[in-house]
Amino acid sequence: MRNINNSKLRIIPLGGLEQIGMNITAFEFEDSIIVVDCGLSFPEDDMLGIDLVIPDITYLRDNIQKVKGFVITHGHEDHIGALPYVLKEINVPVYATKLTIGLIENKLREHNLLNNTKRKVVKHGQSINLGAFRIEFIKTNHSIVDASALAIYSPAGIIVHTGDFKVDYTPVFGDAIDLQRFGEIGKKGVLALMCDSTNAERPGFTMSERTVGKVFDNIMSEHKNSRIIIATFASNVDRVQQIINSAYKYGRKVVVEGRSMVNVIKTASELGYLNVPDKTLIDIEMMKNYPDDQVVLITTGSQGESMAALSRIAASLHKKVQIKPGDTVIFSSKAIPGNEKAVSKVINELSMKGADVIFQDAHVSGHACQEEIKLLYSLVHPKYAIPVHGEYRHLKAQADLAKSLGIAKENIFLLSSGDVLELGADSASVVNHVHTGAILVDGLGVGDVGNIVLRDRQHLAEDGIMIVVLTLEKYSNQLLAGPDIVSRGFVYVRESEDLMGEARAVVDKAVGDCLDRGVSDWGKLKNVIKDSLSDFIWKKTKRDPMILPIIMEV
Amino acid sequence: MRNINNSKLRIIPLGGLEQIGMNITAFEFEDSIIVVDCGLSFPEDDMLGIDLVIPDITYLRDNIQKVKGFVITHGHEDHIGALPYVLKEINVPVYATKLTIGLIENKLREHNLLNNTKRKVVKHGQSINLGAFRIEFIKTNHSIVDASALAIYSPAGIIVHTGDFKVDYTPVFGDAIDLQRFGEIGKKGVLALMCDSTNAERPGFTMSERTVGKVFDNIMSEHKNSRIIIATFASNVDRVQQIINSAYKYGRKVVVEGRSMVNVIKTASELGYLNVPDKTLIDIEMMKNYPDDQVVLITTGSQGESMAALSRIAASLHKKVQIKPGDTVIFSSKAIPGNEKAVSKVINELSMKGADVIFQDAHVSGHACQEEIKLLYSLVHPKYAIPVHGEYRHLKAQADLAKSLGIAKENIFLLSSGDVLELGADSASVVNHVHTGAILVDGLGVGDVGNIVLRDRQHLAEDGIMIVVLTLEKYSNQLLAGPDIVSRGFVYVRESEDLMGEARAVVDKAVGDCLDRGVSDWGKLKNVIKDSLSDFIWKKTKRDPMILPIIMEV
Repeated sequence: MRNINNSKLRIIPLGGLEQIGMNITAFEFEDSIIVVDCGLSFPEDDMLGIDLVIPDITYLRDNIQKVKGFVITHGHEDHIGALPYVLKEINVPVYATKLTIGLIENKLREHNLLNNTKRKVVKHGQSINLGAFRIEFIKTNHSIVDASALAIYSPAGIIVHTGDFKVDYTPVFGDAIDLQRFGEIGKKGVLALMCDSTNAERPGFTMSERTVGKVFDNIMSEHKNSRIIIATFASNVDRVQQIINSAYKYGRKVVVEGRSMVNVIKTASELGYLNVPDKTLIDIEMMKNYPDDQVVLITTGSQGESMAALSRIAASLHKKVQIKPGDTVIFSSKAIPGNEKAVSKVINELSMKGADVIFQDAHVSGHACQEEIKLLYSLVHPKYAIPVHGEYRHLKAQADLAKSLGIAKENIFLLSSGDVLELGADSASVVNHVHTGAILVDGLGVGDVGNIVLRDRQHLAEDGIMIVVLTLEKYSNQLLAGPDIVSRGFVYVRESEDLMGEARAVVDKAVGDCLDRGVSDWGKLKNVIKDSLSDFIWKKTKRDPMILPIIMEV
Repeated sequence: MRNINNSKLRIIPLGGLEQIGMNITAFEFEDSIIVVDCGLSFPEDDMLGIDLVIPDITYLRDNIQKVKGFVITHGHEDHIGALPYVLKEINVPVYATKLTIGLIENKLREHNLLNNTKRKVVKHGQSINLGAFRIEFIKTNHSIVDASALAIYSPAGIIVHTGDFKVDYTPVFGDAIDLQRFGEIGKKGVLALMCDSTNAERPGFTMSERTVGKVFDNIMSEHKNSRIIIATFASNVDRVQQIINSAYKYGRKVVVEGRSMVNVIKTASELGYLNVPDKTLIDIEMMKNYPDDQVVLITTGSQGESMAALSRIAASLHKKVQIKPGDTVIFSSKAIPGNEKAVSKVINELSMKGADVIFQDAHVSGHACQEEIKLLYSLVHPKYAIPVHGEYRHLKAQADLAKSLGIAKENIFLLSSGDVLELGADSASVVNHVHTGAILVDGLGVGDVGNIVLRDRQHLAEDGIMIVVLTLEKYSNQLLAGPDIVSRGFVYVRESEDLMGEARAVVDKAVGDCLDRGVSDWGKLKNVIKDSLSDFIWKKTKRDPMILPIIMEV
């Protein structure tokens, strides 16, 4: 890559565009690179067997001497989840607010990286210097506390990056978003705004987190006699705080269940982000000592995840909690796209066991709607608009908003991951495209499952496999054993003996003909087996199992 | 099964409860059985490779001499889709309204069943006699025309079955729902109401189909210069009619694309349910002869189905239609739960190609909301309430509505598929449970894929397969060839040579030790191979591929 004009700033998203998740963006000026966020994404439906997806950081690896540090906006998985993987290769310091660092440290501990990773807690309003950059952390609101926007001061100009945000004038913990500071920086002149697009299709204003607290109060006053179970996102510390507040008000003890929920509450309490009245939290083992009307259970599983506590409770697979008629179960959440059916399944199971399931009104979004996005643009008043965080439709919706606010069409950039956007005081253009991609993590394997393996898994999932084995005499090419057919995931063999018998006859004949004609090329023999068997199976069943011939020689 | 009191009516749902889809219910009185609807359902996420699901009709087969006919409420797949499969075993006449019979005939033709299936068209207001039953067809409204409720007159009393319905005072085609007749029958005294639960969780009233026509008019007047593409459900003939009306009003020709859309429009036109002005419909090949502002394309694919026309257009895989910047694409639909991500993918692809995508307001539901359900109950005034059509949460929501209308709790029945509800003039109770189930259809195979095959497919999908082959000398048990390891869907072997080499060594040693110890039981040898290899692979990768040892003997 050539870089003629060294005085320009380059913004290079390495993920997070065209998708929700895997947020990571490099900012490069001469010999300095800083990286904002380092998130993972969850596998798409066609990524069979994959646990999680992390960004391909070839660009950072190729420029490792320039990389000064990771600057993290908040503690959600799609912003911190890839750090333990990436830090193994790019071991530079990590900068974030206190709770964010706390959650990152939990991850580093699991990966045995705590001792060799430098971490620095930054307060809102503070700045850090990294190479050519100064980065200021600005207080915002989001569905996790301690979220930050970043003002990135570079010799080419100021970039404001909102991170994930909403405007909450009455937050549960701490201050509202620092709108004054956005205005102040806007007055200095901002080159570009990189703003959260998640809710850019939604008109209006996202409600305050505090409104959910009132809903909890109402539910608890209306369900005074029943046990209350509330499922929500583990990381939403404010939500948990409000559940605890309502429970305390109505004389209930609080039980916490689900590994990630327990972990986050522990970290948030230790760091002072959660205020739990004495003797309010009790251990799940103690729950049986309290009558139903004195207990609230907070749990994971609001997305219907099959291994999470609520799903196990609903399916009667949980060892310590059983649903009883009269229980009230509240989903303090919205189904993330793709999870609707799983959530519905859990609701059905809970209802069948007699629980009263409340799904509406006990949730607000953590992302800015259109009016909030317009507010941010009006305060920051950027020259260039670079919508971030969202699928293309969301980025596009923000672009339309920016246009409606008077930003010229040519000053709005809908980037793709890998695009190199070069910004000067008077110019902006995409000058290059670097390699990016998704690295699939499956168990301990990072990147050892690629497209070929996924295609095979899809094929196997669809119609199963038929394996044809035979043993040949090495020199004479005489058939010593087989061909035998073994299948998995194709048909239930015991009930399809005729079909399997015919299949064997077809292969027998094909192999026999081949050997009679003196064919000694195994590749040819394998192809004959594949073709004859797959033709036969397709004709008989209109299915296309994977066919795998294996030839042994003696 | 004992049947002490022969004068009672038995209602036996054989599917359709605890799920949306696969509706089929038997009504039995002494020696007569009639079957209402015979639908399919679409496979759940864990039914890998399955094309569709049909009900297990063992109960009908066991009582085949009693079965008098199928009475079908309307022409949607979840009410007619299993007919071609079931009629092969239970060949009795099919009764339905004209369009419904037309759509059923399309299916019978595909399955070569047209000539040996008796069909009878019934008009709204008419009755048919089947054994001990008289069945009256009552006009309703739904998202397909010619939908019917049924009044089922039996010696034990009258049952009203709504089918899928909504109340549309201003339908696009034909009359509004015959509320008067529901009231009249209600006055006679109705034993039980079986009412559609799909929207029972939604307050209010479903809007008239006609409101969507106004939206089309608005969109066409606001997008006068662009080509308009509208995706909707093929079976929604009224929706298609309204698109044609708007197109005609704004001087546009209409092109139809997508196999099921073409078929339904053909049938509906032939039978007089669609009124197309002369020269309005043009062939897709002719589209290029008209400027963009004179064309509307109606297409399938509103659910993001990967093989449907709109998805292929969005992915640039369609041979005849390419998206251009400025095209307006309207989703006249709502994403059915489970399809959200697929729909979003298509929206993103269309947006990236420059299309203006409209997703809101161009759709109304075909199912009754709470106020309509209350209206039906008030007109019919049943003694017993039996909510149907829906998952448990929906049935439960209707039960709550019924309770709020004064129906005693013990007179409301939340049935499961297979329950035998016995009804007399003064009694109702579940007296038995018959065998029901889901038969999986995969290609031409009906029922040859069951739980074992599905479990194998899930296992293969998750982590792939490792096959260990070896050849032994029959009498001496001497190893003649192998063990070789072949894997698919596990790792990309070329980049994992070390791992595969170590795996081979592990198996080599395990097999060698076994044979040295004189183990000649192949079952034991296979277990040793499985255990040693799976332990090794789990330790190295935290993955659990299927391991399949194959031993050949010479």
